[in-house]
Amino acid sequence: MVASAALLMRERGVEATSFSDVLAHSAAPRGSVYHHFPGGKAQLIEEATRYAGEVIAAGLASALAENDPVAALRRFASAWRDVLRSSDFGAGCPIVAATLEGDHAPAARAAAAASFSRWEHLLSGAFERHGQTRERARSLATLVIAAIEGAIVLARAQRSGDPFERVAGQLEELLADAVTNAPRPATEAH
Amino acid sequence: MVASAALLMRERGVEATSFSDVLAHSAAPRGSVYHHFPGGKAQLIEEATRYAGEVIAAGLASALAENDPVAALRRFASAWRDVLRSSDFGAGCPIVAATLEGDHAPAARAAAAASFSRWEHLLSGAFERHGQTRERARSLATLVIAAIEGAIVLARAQRSGDPFERVAGQLEELLADAVTNAPRPATEAH
Repeated sequence: MVASAALLMRERGVEATSFSDVLAHSAAPRGSVYHHFPGGKAQLIEEATRYAGEVIAAGLASALAENDPVAALRRFASAWRDVLRSSDFGAGCPIVAATLEGDHAPAARAAAAASFSRWEHLLSGAFERHGQTRERARSLATLVIAAIEGAIVLARAQRSGDPFERVAGQLEELLADAVTNAPRPATEAH
Repeated sequence: MVASAALLMRERGVEATSFSDVLAHSAAPRGSVYHHFPGGKAQLIEEATRYAGEVIAAGLASALAENDPVAALRRFASAWRDVLRSSDFGAGCPIVAATLEGDHAPAARAAAAASFSRWEHLLSGAFERHGQTRERARSLATLVIAAIEGAIVLARAQRSGDPFERVAGQLEELLADAVTNAPRPATEAH
């Protein structure tokens, strides 16, 4: 149910994702709902946000494990490109959906904030290992996440992958420049 | 009513912005609603999206009129910073809100796409006048819009202006580099 909620949130946002929709999508028995989610929809959405944030973080960590930040960005972008294409530009990021609920769903927003911080931390660490100062690494990490999330929104609006490709291309260039022009990596090849 | 709808959409999205809320916010007489909006809420949201897109485009055009893309970016970012701060990170971009409704509100999504394209066109033209190739100018324009929109979402999630400032700083650096390293502007000082 948590995974189903995350999938539905990507397309329709939190407000329009009902318990019934999630039940239908997950084929979970109706009787189990209040057993598993005594906090109701707010709890389901919070858990779905946390779950989606962790899945995305795991993908990012695996992409970064090869110690090539530009290739990792390419894999991160590629995963989002798949979401856009496979949904005909109908689906985006569930963490953005959770954020936009704001005070309506403060626990989900807090889970969204934690997800963004986690991704930022993963990218920032990789950029530091490639010679960026802590401050610059963090700013680059925030830029990458913000630009990819914004590009997903632009692609959905225009129902075209073009804005996403332009942004991914610019980020790749920017990162390649930063990594190439950096002093030798502090930790590498171990 | 159109302006009120745009203001409410920034905070709560389209789904949770009702005709009654818009009436209360705008103090418009209830009887006038179906006279002015025979297409109902879908029409109101579409017009609000178009209106907000034009207001933002006008601000961007005015910022760009001084022929200094970096200063224009600073003014664009500053306007969004004001939205974030004055709402205690509760409000974002109404064009993003319209986009995320997707198939629920296809006319609003189309108005959102047109708004993004218009902003992109304004920025792209300015970057071209500052020595960027057409292709690079367009990609930079898309990156600026995507990154600012994404940064607004991150700031709302984290209820802090910090992610927004990191992104705005990176974009400013990137644009300053691009403009400084470009060949002499093709059209300037006229």
